[in-house]
Amino acid sequence: MGRTSDAKDRLIAAAMELMYTRGYHAVGVQEICVQAGVNKGSFYHFFPSKQALVLAVIETYAQDVQQVWHEAMTASGPVLDRMQQVFETTYEAHRTLVERYGHMLGCPIGNFAVELSSLDERVRQKIGETFNGWTDVIEHMLRETASEGEWSAVEIATTAQTLIAYFEGVLLLAKTRNDPRVVQQLARGAVHLVEAACNGRLKSL
Amino acid sequence: MGRTSDAKDRLIAAAMELMYTRGYHAVGVQEICVQAGVNKGSFYHFFPSKQALVLAVIETYAQDVQQVWHEAMTASGPVLDRMQQVFETTYEAHRTLVERYGHMLGCPIGNFAVELSSLDERVRQKIGETFNGWTDVIEHMLRETASEGEWSAVEIATTAQTLIAYFEGVLLLAKTRNDPRVVQQLARGAVHLVEAACNGRLKSL
Repeated sequence: MGRTSDAKDRLIAAAMELMYTRGYHAVGVQEICVQAGVNKGSFYHFFPSKQALVLAVIETYAQDVQQVWHEAMTASGPVLDRMQQVFETTYEAHRTLVERYGHMLGCPIGNFAVELSSLDERVRQKIGETFNGWTDVIEHMLRETASEGEWSAVEIATTAQTLIAYFEGVLLLAKTRNDPRVVQQLARGAVHLVEAACNGRLKSL
Repeated sequence: MGRTSDAKDRLIAAAMELMYTRGYHAVGVQEICVQAGVNKGSFYHFFPSKQALVLAVIETYAQDVQQVWHEAMTASGPVLDRMQQVFETTYEAHRTLVERYGHMLGCPIGNFAVELSSLDERVRQKIGETFNGWTDVIEHMLRETASEGEWSAVEIATTAQTLIAYFEGVLLLAKTRNDPRVVQQLARGAVHLVEAACNGRLKSL
């Protein structure tokens, strides 16, 4: 049993792995505690419920993915290359995950969205905030790159949402093929979404 | 207890509703039998396992959604309007479902894809075949509409896949917002995917 400050992180790490590979409902608190090497009393010291834990898990995964979007969106170079980069980085991450787990697991946030959105209102809201955080990153990039005044805030927001929807759908499709290369093969779609939506209103593609 | 020929259909109908609203793992054979008004012995006469039942459920949902794609893709009128139509019909269907169940439930096939793809190889394959069936419908339409020889089979296949990925991602996003209008609001993205991908190689948009 390590330091108390570690215990919370170990619980989150154990839950991340178990829930990502098998789903929220399939994994119990007991199993998470065993994998984390933390006793059940300590679990409830940190997390009043399994729901509280999954919110922390979602928060951690959300930041990981947002970082991928942020790095690509704030990179130098053409906008369309930046879009492609998100899918390239995501492909690499999932290639590594497939080597480790033998399966394409999909987007952890998308998985929780599907499993829990219609069953747990608090989790649904948290996932909504997560997707909003990602779209903010894309919107910011599009606003900076758009010729001033030509592309409305609503159009930019809608385009950002189409990109997040597409990103999630591609990961879902890749999961059903058990093949991370689908993420690479379909990257071009994200480029097309920006190209057609901007309709010449970006300073440079 | 109705006629035997009804019992199988009632089991599928009960499983469709229970699994769509709560997920595959959350629903047991006993509960499905009670809702269907069929005894457990009869269940195993029709379905050797819960897996066999979910394959029948997926088949039925797959045909329903494929019908939506087929009707829109084979309609007369501009290609881009046909794309918009798929999302319009889907929005209407989910608006009705939200009125009935109080929640945006997402795409039944996408839900099973997320819950089961990395856990059940047979189900994963079935869902893969389902998505292939839908992309075939889109590919057929694009081939018929493309100027001859200008748009390669690979490009057409990839474009069809981007559309299915996008369709699934939009339904996932709508589920996290608990709002079917997202399907309407993001329909334009599907139009953009075709517009930018075809790059002038359709006889008429």
